[in-house]
Amino acid sequence: MSSDFHIKPEIRILGIDDSALLHERVMIVGTVFRGGDWIDGILRSDITRDGLDATEVISTMIKNSRHYSQLRIVMLDGITYGGFNVVDIEELYRETGLPVIVVMRAYPDFEKIRAALRHFSDGEVRWDMIKKAGKIEKLITEKNRTPIYIQKAGIGVKSAEKIVRLTSIRSNIPEPLRVAHLIATGIILGESRGKA
Amino acid sequence: MSSDFHIKPEIRILGIDDSALLHERVMIVGTVFRGGDWIDGILRSDITRDGLDATEVISTMIKNSRHYSQLRIVMLDGITYGGFNVVDIEELYRETGLPVIVVMRAYPDFEKIRAALRHFSDGEVRWDMIKKAGKIEKLITEKNRTPIYIQKAGIGVKSAEKIVRLTSIRSNIPEPLRVAHLIATGIILGESRGKA
Repeated sequence: MSSDFHIKPEIRILGIDDSALLHERVMIVGTVFRGGDWIDGILRSDITRDGLDATEVISTMIKNSRHYSQLRIVMLDGITYGGFNVVDIEELYRETGLPVIVVMRAYPDFEKIRAALRHFSDGEVRWDMIKKAGKIEKLITEKNRTPIYIQKAGIGVKSAEKIVRLTSIRSNIPEPLRVAHLIATGIILGESRGKA
Repeated sequence: MSSDFHIKPEIRILGIDDSALLHERVMIVGTVFRGGDWIDGILRSDITRDGLDATEVISTMIKNSRHYSQLRIVMLDGITYGGFNVVDIEELYRETGLPVIVVMRAYPDFEKIRAALRHFSDGEVRWDMIKKAGKIEKLITEKNRTPIYIQKAGIGVKSAEKIVRLTSIRSNIPEPLRVAHLIATGIILGESRGKA
């Protein structure tokens, strides 16, 4: 997909976050947004803590959704969910046909990640998926001087930045991810908290 | 509280809905909204299916929330949650100090409710709580010609109507209730559905 990807103000976006690591299965929540404004739907599934099923579970959750045909973008909050369950964003793009934008609040500490992955027998596989996610771009939105960092699959960096700006109306985090985080923590812990 | 209750566009509202009756405990979800626009937080608790604990559980959930001091209004989706677990809206108002607005998509079928309550040994207690919720007002919002019905405690009908109009930006249902419904069904069933 080229960087002249057409962006309507009401572009349908699925933002996905995970919940606290309380159990072997970790709940993930998807919010279907129109741009940064309205919530059209909520999806829920679960992945294995430190497993390798995140890409497949997220892909299946998307393809089974009644919103699938309207969705244009998937937004992820980093590429590791439920501990070290790494999402292969190129594979997610291929499987769903939907471009993926990864949003991070901080530049990843790759040395630390690599060290942690040494405890996994398949650490190299996970490390390859992390490297494959590609270049990390720094982005400063109008809403907040704190930069965020993005990666992408199936979309140019200019279009990805436009979509992040369009939807970051409440903080420096796009609404689909901010709200997915509130829901995932609120449902599991009884009250939402934290970073967004 | 008089009907000249001051309404800021960003008035903090808690909208509460319940989820499908799959188990003995039924999840309830609260969304903290600023007017009809932004979600500030998510609360979650659970009540007993066909029990009588809804008033107390909701009241405790509100008083324990970090958002309590900022909240100005509680919105309920009808007054029966988790089957026939009736909310005593006067008691909820007294316990929390927050005015309560009840929103209904249809005028309640009181004959049917009364008949169903005959199967409960404490059906009369529940019936009294339902009668006590007071007069039902019909309201037509700008967004949709389909009328809705409201009841209230601790607030005048004019102010209640203003708040419902202010927050019904997406459908004829106020956003805090529309989104609470999407979350409650989405989390329990895997994908949101239905009425809003």
